[in-house]
Amino acid sequence: MQIRIPCDDLKEAFYKALLKAGLSEERSKLCGSLFAENQRDGVYSHGLNRFPGVVAELNAGRLDGKAEPEFVKALGVVEQWDGKMGVGLVNAHIAMGRSIEIARENGMGCVGLCNTNHWMRAGSYGLQAADAGCIGMCWTNTKPLMPPWGIEEKRIGNNPMVISIPREGGHILLDMAMSQYSNGKLEVLQAQGEMLPIAGGFDSDGNLTCDPGAILDSKHALPIGYWKGSALAIVLDTLAALLSGGQATHQIGAQGDEYAVSQTYIAIDVRSLNGKVLCEQIVNGIVNDLHGVYESARYPGEGMLRTRKESKEKGVLVEDEQWEELLGMG
Amino acid sequence: MQIRIPCDDLKEAFYKALLKAGLSEERSKLCGSLFAENQRDGVYSHGLNRFPGVVAELNAGRLDGKAEPEFVKALGVVEQWDGKMGVGLVNAHIAMGRSIEIARENGMGCVGLCNTNHWMRAGSYGLQAADAGCIGMCWTNTKPLMPPWGIEEKRIGNNPMVISIPREGGHILLDMAMSQYSNGKLEVLQAQGEMLPIAGGFDSDGNLTCDPGAILDSKHALPIGYWKGSALAIVLDTLAALLSGGQATHQIGAQGDEYAVSQTYIAIDVRSLNGKVLCEQIVNGIVNDLHGVYESARYPGEGMLRTRKESKEKGVLVEDEQWEELLGMG
Repeated sequence: MQIRIPCDDLKEAFYKALLKAGLSEERSKLCGSLFAENQRDGVYSHGLNRFPGVVAELNAGRLDGKAEPEFVKALGVVEQWDGKMGVGLVNAHIAMGRSIEIARENGMGCVGLCNTNHWMRAGSYGLQAADAGCIGMCWTNTKPLMPPWGIEEKRIGNNPMVISIPREGGHILLDMAMSQYSNGKLEVLQAQGEMLPIAGGFDSDGNLTCDPGAILDSKHALPIGYWKGSALAIVLDTLAALLSGGQATHQIGAQGDEYAVSQTYIAIDVRSLNGKVLCEQIVNGIVNDLHGVYESARYPGEGMLRTRKESKEKGVLVEDEQWEELLGMG
Repeated sequence: MQIRIPCDDLKEAFYKALLKAGLSEERSKLCGSLFAENQRDGVYSHGLNRFPGVVAELNAGRLDGKAEPEFVKALGVVEQWDGKMGVGLVNAHIAMGRSIEIARENGMGCVGLCNTNHWMRAGSYGLQAADAGCIGMCWTNTKPLMPPWGIEEKRIGNNPMVISIPREGGHILLDMAMSQYSNGKLEVLQAQGEMLPIAGGFDSDGNLTCDPGAILDSKHALPIGYWKGSALAIVLDTLAALLSGGQATHQIGAQGDEYAVSQTYIAIDVRSLNGKVLCEQIVNGIVNDLHGVYESARYPGEGMLRTRKESKEKGVLVEDEQWEELLGMG
């Protein structure tokens, strides 16, 4: 059964569970807020759904809750950091924070982060940049999750990519993996017995299919735009490995499990470049043009903001069993 | 009839035609080389096909062959330049060149360019960065060419985006518009009486179709990955306008014709960051992993390099009528 919980209660519950799992107060607060905000924004795949798995990894010592990312080297505004196999959310927050710092001094900053772990919701760190008045760009590589276009063997990651643009009335936020559908979405549609509106992957015989279960079985998701998303995934992986000096998807795949991934963080201090007034004018010009067509024309991130508003008014939607489980962990 | 011409002869012919159209020697050489290289690399949509149109625009004074891009302002490593409505290829070459210069001193550089014109092949400027040992990223906005996902009215650009990565054995080059198929490709398939292998746009009734002619009629191309490419197109347009202080797609659309577009250029001096040996090792690790699967697994840009090799060995493929027309222009 779905119930609604005030967001602050959710944050508090995540915080307590993370404290108990051995994170510091500061880190428990940061990660608890991120998990709660993901659930609040309707990104259910990286809220309560994923949380017990992360706590299990902390408890098993597969994630080092105390690891601090370390500066490796810099070339001007480009820095390389080593995530030391620490908590992905903490490392990501620190890396984007450092990019923003560099951008404050130099207009733009870039951090390549190696040896880090799953950052949960990619968009969190884009929102972090936008909250600071910066354009944010970040992406991660993953283990092999898709076949490159033209072959049937799973060799490339779905490598989620984020671009965020600050805006007073609600940031623009693109947060997309290179697969047409996320696994989470496929699972939801399978459970509901629904077919996809468009082909989302290959079945075990290598044919394109709209059947979410067949794609989950074959594990062969379809890249967005077929050959184009496949190419973009390869390029994002290469950039993440090059800029961080860390592992590429083929090396992560050789490990078996997904850990020690590579990520890129870029921030541009656009409000200092143009002044806030001009920034708002340019961005709202684009948003208003879209809204002027039909109500159904939305800017990236707008649907998420509607969910957030509803969560603020009525409480955050949670499965009661997951909520009870979370309370039991604190 | 298709014939093959040595690339140097093609460059010479473009050069002479551009001189006659009033470009300086230096600019005629640059633009002549770019047009010839596009044809050589198999990017026929931006070689001989487009050339007479550009010369006509120069002759009619709609393109200012003498305009020099002007520095507007800087915030650290981020600069804004005004293209002064000059030749798009010249402005693009100068803007990426400036980004590379900034990257040489600071690791990374970004140039926003407003009031510029069609740069022909987007990939040219990615190759320019890669030839200089840098990662290159650039994109342009366009007039409205696609409907945003969910509506039927053409409101967003196809906003080609490039990411390039230097590599001794051949650069990695992603060069993609946000539409699933380019207009050039649709025209070729229509002329051949062929259907698209996958839906590439909407017919005039708003239904997805594989008929290239129906898409050319409706002018409603399909964004890559449906809602995802639509979102990426909106974000790239917003970034191009914000970083250059120039026009967004809706403003270009209000003009009618496509001119005074906005572009973004980013260069990262990755070989100075990592050293060339490590860069080659990382990139070749990824390339070799792809090649290790099947021969048909290619890295982005690899097919283009095969065409280039063939052009070098046998001459560049041209339509004899277009070749004669070009010679007549010189």
